[in-house]
Amino acid sequence: MQGTAQQPTPPAAYTPTDRTVPTRSPERASYDRELVHSILDEGYVCHLGFVRDGRPVVLPTLYGRVGERLYVHGSTGSRPLRMTGGADPGLPVCLTVTHIDALVLARSAFHHSINYRSVVVHGIAHDVTDPEEKRAALDALVDHVVPGRAADSRPPNKKELAATAVIRLDLNEISAKLRTGGVNDEPEDLALPHWAGLVPLRKGYEAPVPDTDLTPGTRLPEYLAVP
Amino acid sequence: MQGTAQQPTPPAAYTPTDRTVPTRSPERASYDRELVHSILDEGYVCHLGFVRDGRPVVLPTLYGRVGERLYVHGSTGSRPLRMTGGADPGLPVCLTVTHIDALVLARSAFHHSINYRSVVVHGIAHDVTDPEEKRAALDALVDHVVPGRAADSRPPNKKELAATAVIRLDLNEISAKLRTGGVNDEPEDLALPHWAGLVPLRKGYEAPVPDTDLTPGTRLPEYLAVP
Repeated sequence: MQGTAQQPTPPAAYTPTDRTVPTRSPERASYDRELVHSILDEGYVCHLGFVRDGRPVVLPTLYGRVGERLYVHGSTGSRPLRMTGGADPGLPVCLTVTHIDALVLARSAFHHSINYRSVVVHGIAHDVTDPEEKRAALDALVDHVVPGRAADSRPPNKKELAATAVIRLDLNEISAKLRTGGVNDEPEDLALPHWAGLVPLRKGYEAPVPDTDLTPGTRLPEYLAVP
Repeated sequence: MQGTAQQPTPPAAYTPTDRTVPTRSPERASYDRELVHSILDEGYVCHLGFVRDGRPVVLPTLYGRVGERLYVHGSTGSRPLRMTGGADPGLPVCLTVTHIDALVLARSAFHHSINYRSVVVHGIAHDVTDPEEKRAALDALVDHVVPGRAADSRPPNKKELAATAVIRLDLNEISAKLRTGGVNDEPEDLALPHWAGLVPLRKGYEAPVPDTDLTPGTRLPEYLAVP
């Protein structure tokens, strides 16, 4: 899911903007391109925010990345995808991806926290109309769920392509925010009797469960082997 | 985190509204109160959406539930919390919680999906000014991360309470949306050679890591025992 080789190498960091500099804990913010990409690539769903009738709407949805573009797909009848179409100038969105790495249990209630990594993208989403870009975006969406999977599944046919809308969001106004490390209790609380520490969350997946209709003899692909 | 006993029993389901009836896959929507609560209670962070300068903003944040109210906290300086304060009529928000249960790998790219459970809440968030409600909300926020933890930590002091803003969102306009079950391939694709099935994601947490400054002899609390 990298950009093609003939494109110029982008700068190592995104440029902060008013919207991407947090008012709180600015030391947790990062604009490092590789870090941002790695957080995006690790997620399964993003939370896509847009404004409808003046009110915010936040929906979970699959996404994929191709270089400096994110793609979100859905039925041609779904709300956010309908709103970008035709002569429309695009849909202002905020797309957020968050990983929870550990619970941070402090001695004080106040210092309880979570170790997380998140990316927030601001931008204008546009309908993808070019058939080649649309096909590549749909491959990226499948490969985002399981890398290598798009090549190991039946490609979309004309009817399926027509029923699927894809929107594109360029990665320009974007930042990561992270909390890492241990417990930050006040010095005067350190002797309190409460247990304190990190509780890491489990990652990865369990053993795959084959479809009941699977053709006998179909082997589990290597890309699904549980490490 | 249930409502207090003296309150009347709420109806078993929330009332659907224009905003909570999905345009796509309405059969996946549910308004069942217990189901909605269970999805909310299982999450660590929500994605809070609001509108700033006409543009959507989606931020991950901790939350807690007390009966039919959700609470979100943050520094008194953070953006969404500042926007609800004072004579302000409240902040229109959309709060979304999503769990990913399994990857759904179909033989066709088109039918790839994810088994998920999500809850979307629409409403107006208000600043919590009552000190007792604020304390209860902060307890709920800590207990949401680890049930029982609020009682086993040093409660917030006056300074910490003053530095923390809490906003409240009533559970009225709310719905769950779920995908469960197996692969939905087209009948003509069943004989294709691609592996198909579910890939369940791992849940729960790894062995807790004690703080390096932990008082020697402090035992891991029972509520953190890894099952």
